[in-house]
Amino acid sequence: MPCIQTKTTVKLTSAQEDLLKVKFGKAIELLPGKSENWLMLTFEGNCHMYFKGRSEPDMAFVEVKLFGKASRQDYSKLTHELTSILHRELDINPSQIYIKYEEVSHWGWNGNNF
Amino acid sequence: MPCIQTKTTVKLTSAQEDLLKVKFGKAIELLPGKSENWLMLTFEGNCHMYFKGRSEPDMAFVEVKLFGKASRQDYSKLTHELTSILHRELDINPSQIYIKYEEVSHWGWNGNNF
Amino acid sequence: MPCIQTKTTVKLTSAQEDLLKVKFGKAIELLPGKSENWLMLTFEGNCHMYFKGRSEPDMAFVEVKLFGKASRQDYSKLTHELTSILHRELDINPSQIYIKYEEVSHWGWNGNNF
Repeated sequence: MPCIQTKTTVKLTSAQEDLLKVKFGKAIELLPGKSENWLMLTFEGNCHMYFKGRSEPDMAFVEVKLFGKASRQDYSKLTHELTSILHRELDINPSQIYIKYEEVSHWGWNGNNF
Repeated sequence: MPCIQTKTTVKLTSAQEDLLKVKFGKAIELLPGKSENWLMLTFEGNCHMYFKGRSEPDMAFVEVKLFGKASRQDYSKLTHELTSILHRELDINPSQIYIKYEEVSHWGWNGNNF
Repeated sequence: MPCIQTKTTVKLTSAQEDLLKVKFGKAIELLPGKSENWLMLTFEGNCHMYFKGRSEPDMAFVEVKLFGKASRQDYSKLTHELTSILHRELDINPSQIYIKYEEVSHWGWNGNNF
């Protein structure tokens, strides 16, 4: 029950979103018990964003929302991996990528809460 | 002071959003002390989403954000109701709907925090 | 490591976003230790929103996400200031502005978590 939501200034193509989908689906396994089997993704390209008072063509804000919790170490690994993916595939400078985590206590799927 | 934010792959019409507004405005009463009188809604249709590695035409990610807390039982009732509404009105398969809850401690309205 | 995300029904011009960027960059200093140097902003205009069962042309939902915590008093000051800015610059009625705060424990930048 994780969901990774990506907002970026980059104008994303369908091919890029498909590729990120595959990479993120593998990366999420860095959190114990999580896999692509329960992973939802949302992508928003061409976003209007600023960082440090500047508007740059390469920027991303990624929110990882998960049911339950994981360790600091696991979150660190995932930050490293997601940043690397966005750097490689979208040419976004890692210094312009924020990745934040939200641990969720109440999460519903298929009409019922876990 | 709740806000329900809906992202879906479905391309929403104004009529559908108006209808969801009415239904969600009633459903929120399942959380004690909450009503349409303080409910904000945001709708985003035509979103780029994936679930379980697939891109399907019917998918939704719903975030219920509320000032304060409610019980597990009340959240479950609301999940059931919101899922039913999205299934009936937008023909989204319940197995492709995530609904997550965020309990908020600091919430401002009209220039002041509650 | 704060991020302020603004959704509004107002159709934002680039000039308005640039202006809000400057004002928000100053306002964030109301939270101790925060400044424009680490502030990310996202703006979404022309959003589909409802409040109290109505669709109005002037409405905003603002999410302030920050690494760590601040005091109730500081959040109140920031709510007051952000509301004033949106009222002055976008002519949004303060009674149609929600501002909510999320205190984040795990936040990554540049490939590593803080």
